[in-house]
Amino acid sequence: MTSVGVIGGGQLARMMIPAAINLGINLRVFAEAEDSSARLAASTVGDFTNAKQLLAFAQTVDVVTFDHEHVPLGNLALLVSEGISVFPPPAALALTHDKTVMRAKLAELGIPQPRWAVVGEESAQELDRVGGFPCVAKLPVGGYDGKGVRVVHSWQDIKDWLPLGPVLLEELVAFKRELSQVGARRPSGEWVSWPLVETHQEGGVCSVVVSPAPDITQIQTYDAESIAERIAAECDVVGVLAVEMFEDHDGQILVNELAMRPHNSGHVLTEQSVTSQFEQHLRAVTDMPLGSTAPRQPTGVMANIFGGAPIEKWAAVSAQFPEVKFHSYQKAYRPGRKAGHIVVTGENTTELLAMVEQARDMFKGEEPWEKPLG
Amino acid sequence: MTSVGVIGGGQLARMMIPAAINLGINLRVFAEAEDSSARLAASTVGDFTNAKQLLAFAQTVDVVTFDHEHVPLGNLALLVSEGISVFPPPAALALTHDKTVMRAKLAELGIPQPRWAVVGEESAQELDRVGGFPCVAKLPVGGYDGKGVRVVHSWQDIKDWLPLGPVLLEELVAFKRELSQVGARRPSGEWVSWPLVETHQEGGVCSVVVSPAPDITQIQTYDAESIAERIAAECDVVGVLAVEMFEDHDGQILVNELAMRPHNSGHVLTEQSVTSQFEQHLRAVTDMPLGSTAPRQPTGVMANIFGGAPIEKWAAVSAQFPEVKFHSYQKAYRPGRKAGHIVVTGENTTELLAMVEQARDMFKGEEPWEKPLG
Repeated sequence: MTSVGVIGGGQLARMMIPAAINLGINLRVFAEAEDSSARLAASTVGDFTNAKQLLAFAQTVDVVTFDHEHVPLGNLALLVSEGISVFPPPAALALTHDKTVMRAKLAELGIPQPRWAVVGEESAQELDRVGGFPCVAKLPVGGYDGKGVRVVHSWQDIKDWLPLGPVLLEELVAFKRELSQVGARRPSGEWVSWPLVETHQEGGVCSVVVSPAPDITQIQTYDAESIAERIAAECDVVGVLAVEMFEDHDGQILVNELAMRPHNSGHVLTEQSVTSQFEQHLRAVTDMPLGSTAPRQPTGVMANIFGGAPIEKWAAVSAQFPEVKFHSYQKAYRPGRKAGHIVVTGENTTELLAMVEQARDMFKGEEPWEKPLG
Repeated sequence: MTSVGVIGGGQLARMMIPAAINLGINLRVFAEAEDSSARLAASTVGDFTNAKQLLAFAQTVDVVTFDHEHVPLGNLALLVSEGISVFPPPAALALTHDKTVMRAKLAELGIPQPRWAVVGEESAQELDRVGGFPCVAKLPVGGYDGKGVRVVHSWQDIKDWLPLGPVLLEELVAFKRELSQVGARRPSGEWVSWPLVETHQEGGVCSVVVSPAPDITQIQTYDAESIAERIAAECDVVGVLAVEMFEDHDGQILVNELAMRPHNSGHVLTEQSVTSQFEQHLRAVTDMPLGSTAPRQPTGVMANIFGGAPIEKWAAVSAQFPEVKFHSYQKAYRPGRKAGHIVVTGENTTELLAMVEQARDMFKGEEPWEKPLG
């Protein structure tokens, strides 16, 4: 029996549990707290910045993988030096750990991306390379879900960041929409991808995903798949790779962000595809043949639920919309926090979007709830 | 947060775990052993015939439900008397606990079933009521998967059973095929059902299920659904109800067996339907609105894997058939034991059946495996 250790006990680790149960994989989670989202499979509670704790956990499993990209790379190098299988490998994960490393690697590969520059307190002249203000500033390490990302109009807007170290500046792309290409790669090199999806953001956080992305040309399909496959192969990615992209007003695709783990833009696939991204990630990191990415239904829509997702609200939604599927993350209430998501699948994207919007509205209001959430 | 306690740690409890994760329900399992199939959610290991142990477990959850029907009814009555919610209620469960109670209740309701009689050492004349030998003999309590069921040709064939207590005799129905109607009911009475499925048995054990059952008439659809709904309502079933049926050569439907829990004949629904039977069971016993039973794909086929289902064999199957979904029960090898199942869904039942047969054959051979199974 194969055992997989996941560093991080968030909802991505949580959603690997059903896939692990089906495949007969023993999933063990190195979680931040006893009440982590992935608590059912959390075998250890510890601090992933503590190399000793991490090593002790890793030695109990066959393969180590990730719920997030915040683990210090030195700790991962230690695991590898101790003979532990770490997928994706630390050299690949370095690209998502530090966004400046990603930008440099994509530039080296000649993959289209926004203009970018790395600035510090002494290198303000680099601003010209991204076309001046306004532009996008990102903290290279540790950002997620809109945190560590700002649209900036003057140096004043990042004067608190500059003393901390290098800041990544990116051209403010006038994009038509955002897309995401999700795929997966085995150590042997086998690669599969799902159809390109369209993602909608609110406040820098993914809010709605439509699968497949409507009105995609054959050239765009080819470009998006080729970019993702090339990144996976050139960077030796193992597991799920999500490539977030901008489509500009000329229809060109530019790479925005990378994730080397199951990604919010792929949640819709659990219902819509023959193989979920969570199952595919576990297959990939255990070097199992990858599953079919064919759709079960022509289209699907996912929406995130923010703040809280108590079962009383879910009961009201399900009474009105018995076709809506719910995924609770069982996290304590926090304003703006992803608390769960809903998915509907079917034939008509417009109808599904309308249903999801109505269902999502029913989760809103009267926050925060007074009692602890399930 | 709702917590549901499942008595029994078999594969049915195991397959409730993914549904519980999605719904945000805390599932706790009262398991037979540390290495039970549902071990990930097994919060207590104990003996379900021990009333004190069972009560202590039940007091930790909001609702008690079942992986099997073997719990002594007296123990369940004790739980109810202590104010614990038990679904299905003990009075309903009595029908599946003792097959003679089921036969009597179905007779009272006027539901079509094979002719039957209860015989003991002193009541051999009852044989006439089932048309004489050959007939089917069943131990009223404790049988499953072909155990406790025999086709008998003379009293000699059950002479070992007669001293144990009453034996149920049933007419040997010359049936065309076997069908199963799966549905679910909430405490409030809300009822939903999935399309009728066709089941194939080998040695008295379910081997293959085709969903929906091919070539079903409108009258048969109506009959099957009405029978299941009537049993659910009249017996106050809460949770999933599976009604196993014979279709005789005149197209008439006769009730063979009942199960008041997720059932092998419903496993195909996890992939083929918008709502799995495991999710529906949890919704029902927690009195949540029931989910849609619409199909995601027109047809699906399930096959059980017997003996063992090691990951090496699964890897070979998935390399050849990336669309096959696997469900491991993570049970130790035992000849003939259900070790897992596979499901394929699509458009063409004949093609799916051929694929499932090929995949199933790949699991056979070289048994028992020498090393412990995952």
